[in-house]
Amino acid sequence: MSAFDDLMVFQRETEALAQIAGRLGWDQETMMPRGAAAQRGEEMAAVEGVLHARRVDPRITDWLEMIDEGHLDDAGSAQLRHIRRSHARASKVPAALAARLARITSEAQGIWAEARENEDFAAFAPTLSEVITLKREEGMALAAGGDIYDAMLDDYEPGATGAELEAMFGALRPELTRLREAVRSAEAPPVLQGKFDESAQMKLTRQLAKTFGYDMSMGRVDKAVHPFSSGSGLDVRITTRTNETDPFNCFYSTIHEVGHACYEQGIDRAYLLTPLGAGVSMGVHESQSRIYENQLGRSRAFTGWLFGQMKDAFGDFGVADEDTFYRIVNRVSDGYIRTEADELQYNLHVLLRFDLERALMGGELQVDDLEAAWNDRFKADFGYEVDKPSNGVLQDVHWSVGLFGYFPTYSLGNVYAGCLNDALRKDVTDLDDQLTVGDTRAATGWLRENVQSHGGLYHPKELITRATGSAPSEAPLLSYLSSKFGELYSL
Amino acid sequence: MSAFDDLMVFQRETEALAQIAGRLGWDQETMMPRGAAAQRGEEMAAVEGVLHARRVDPRITDWLEMIDEGHLDDAGSAQLRHIRRSHARASKVPAALAARLARITSEAQGIWAEARENEDFAAFAPTLSEVITLKREEGMALAAGGDIYDAMLDDYEPGATGAELEAMFGALRPELTRLREAVRSAEAPPVLQGKFDESAQMKLTRQLAKTFGYDMSMGRVDKAVHPFSSGSGLDVRITTRTNETDPFNCFYSTIHEVGHACYEQGIDRAYLLTPLGAGVSMGVHESQSRIYENQLGRSRAFTGWLFGQMKDAFGDFGVADEDTFYRIVNRVSDGYIRTEADELQYNLHVLLRFDLERALMGGELQVDDLEAAWNDRFKADFGYEVDKPSNGVLQDVHWSVGLFGYFPTYSLGNVYAGCLNDALRKDVTDLDDQLTVGDTRAATGWLRENVQSHGGLYHPKELITRATGSAPSEAPLLSYLSSKFGELYSL
Repeated sequence: MSAFDDLMVFQRETEALAQIAGRLGWDQETMMPRGAAAQRGEEMAAVEGVLHARRVDPRITDWLEMIDEGHLDDAGSAQLRHIRRSHARASKVPAALAARLARITSEAQGIWAEARENEDFAAFAPTLSEVITLKREEGMALAAGGDIYDAMLDDYEPGATGAELEAMFGALRPELTRLREAVRSAEAPPVLQGKFDESAQMKLTRQLAKTFGYDMSMGRVDKAVHPFSSGSGLDVRITTRTNETDPFNCFYSTIHEVGHACYEQGIDRAYLLTPLGAGVSMGVHESQSRIYENQLGRSRAFTGWLFGQMKDAFGDFGVADEDTFYRIVNRVSDGYIRTEADELQYNLHVLLRFDLERALMGGELQVDDLEAAWNDRFKADFGYEVDKPSNGVLQDVHWSVGLFGYFPTYSLGNVYAGCLNDALRKDVTDLDDQLTVGDTRAATGWLRENVQSHGGLYHPKELITRATGSAPSEAPLLSYLSSKFGELYSL
Repeated sequence: MSAFDDLMVFQRETEALAQIAGRLGWDQETMMPRGAAAQRGEEMAAVEGVLHARRVDPRITDWLEMIDEGHLDDAGSAQLRHIRRSHARASKVPAALAARLARITSEAQGIWAEARENEDFAAFAPTLSEVITLKREEGMALAAGGDIYDAMLDDYEPGATGAELEAMFGALRPELTRLREAVRSAEAPPVLQGKFDESAQMKLTRQLAKTFGYDMSMGRVDKAVHPFSSGSGLDVRITTRTNETDPFNCFYSTIHEVGHACYEQGIDRAYLLTPLGAGVSMGVHESQSRIYENQLGRSRAFTGWLFGQMKDAFGDFGVADEDTFYRIVNRVSDGYIRTEADELQYNLHVLLRFDLERALMGGELQVDDLEAAWNDRFKADFGYEVDKPSNGVLQDVHWSVGLFGYFPTYSLGNVYAGCLNDALRKDVTDLDDQLTVGDTRAATGWLRENVQSHGGLYHPKELITRATGSAPSEAPLLSYLSSKFGELYSL
């Protein structure tokens, strides 16, 4: 066996162990008895310890040195690129710092939850400061002289920079606030009324999952507090949730997670349990979930079909026709919470977090000023005041668990989805005719071929450029949103 | 930190990883999508590889040498005993042999299943021969000059020997065949008729699990093809199955698995995720499942209560009264299959396997003669001929996966259950009054205190001796069976 083969055998075991850690996470949110939490903490720590030891294993350096890269094909080179990256990252962070970060972020999550419960940002602030101090330390170790925030971003979106995102988001923000203002002044569509049996919701949601191409023979749909997708390759599971008065929450959570899951299921099987065998970045991942959910799932064509499915499942539910249904599904409402935001306003929530967390990491914003900064920015973008911390600075878990550099990938995913939607509709000219009868095969097949199948083969931006024929830009998303909501609200 | 502390930290991680491997097994039988099997095989192999590497880790030898055992308490010494044993065992078997065994037993299971399907022992024989050759090789490595079968037995029942079991089982067999003959000539009780809604079975089975003290806040009950219990400490899950015409299969499978699960749940929390934090042997484990299932669950007192519960759950199901119900529950019927055997005949099935597998390991019996030897022995003990291999030599998966030395622990468990039942009834004199109203707390509390709580602290035989006041013997089981079935069948 060559050094490359040895390295890949070793890496394959690491990937298999990482899958196990993921499956434990799934179990924890769906099946685990509540009383098992303390033991599960130790189990997770043990498997994370094994994974860390493998990522910094000195044999990786030896193998990498011995490999003659000239003899590798593109996939082989890409494998090495991922292995080098993960090995370098794990090796750069001192073990003591990693341990302190693991401890503080585990504690911080509980402290954040309690502070949110008590509407008391001050109770969380000292812990958040500690998290930020340690994350900055980690960022400095990773950046090695470069930009701290860029080093963090690189964990979730390899190759992206804060400056580049700032430019992109800077172009998005004024257009989004303008569109938002216009919509707010227009006449609002009706609101969905009535109750929708939750087991009937689950039945229809499973059908929707299949409609969007989710392979149930290698997956499953369960209920959890927060919808998520978990796993790669042959075992990719999703969760959703139900709410008696809000069936769209269930259906669109499912379609969103199916987008993530189909990305993992759609990767070339040759990459199974290798570094190329998972989605290439959080942004590209989110582009799949978002295009499934929004550009396809919330389109006029598809909602027309969904209206019929809902009538079959629930009988007459008080909505007169497909057009009204379409307007209800895409209703723009005031609200404080990012995860409940509609397609139009969602990115404004993200942009706010991006600017604040970048300032926190850069040292220009202090934790003591964070709540005021949040509230000011919210007022500026949304036009009304935050009423309580749980609707503002305390609403997301991310910062408490040390996720800095993660938020912007949500909006980047929306931008990518906009680009992909344009290219898809150019290639599949009768797409709406198909969606009208609930047939997503051409759309999901196009995404599988042009995005999903490649796994980690290309850099994220390169992948989108290859798929769409041009470099990623916020323009298609803006034009899609302004055309869709302009029409919906007769602007 | 002392060497002992270092060793225990290391060991604790190993135990946590072993729990993860167990949870994957549970997932595979209950939740895993069918199409994930291939990937799961690699995941399991990866985690087993990690566990093996930890068990043979040379640091263990160093730590063991550095520890001054004179300063340890009983629990500390017992921890070392378990660690030494597991380290020595893993180190004695050459890695190449372990790998060959893993491969052949994984293949053999499929070949066995196909041979059983086709009623063709000859198709399985060559593979079984290979398994036996490798197991003997492993046995020689483990025995280091001692008895091969004893070395295998030691994996499941530390300290037990083939000769000692032979003596015990030799005393059991004639009494069991005599009793069996007598029962066969007596008038048989009626058979249960009708259909029993399977979701109502699951509802009652969950209630039964709680009745026997299973803590559902740290466990769960799911359906699986084969009932089993899985996990230790704070996360112990069981499975059961349902059959529309045979609710007793569901209920007594559940009570049996609850016995196993309560053993794990009942271990002193100070031993959590340490070598002492799991049941001490398969025999002692089986003693708990069996005493829950039989001496308690199939007693006249408890079945009287269960009769009422079944009437509540299913309405009038055609059984006149408690006495008739008790006779139906304990009905002795002809049959070929060990796992379906009643309390009286079960051990005859096991004793047959013990003698045959010991002869196979000793080289006195060849695989080519195994089917005939099985059939002859079956005729001698049960009085009728085996009609097909799936009802005979091909019925159990054990040998195909290399489990030699495992079968006798089933009967040893029954012997231990007999001893414990005697001691329990001496200490809790009004036990039947309690069971009559479905109250198992005194019984399960006694077992928890005298057996379960100790985990791996004592040697198996020592544990039973401490709990009962005398060395284990087959006499109490025989006297219990002959009294129970003598009365039931008016012998």
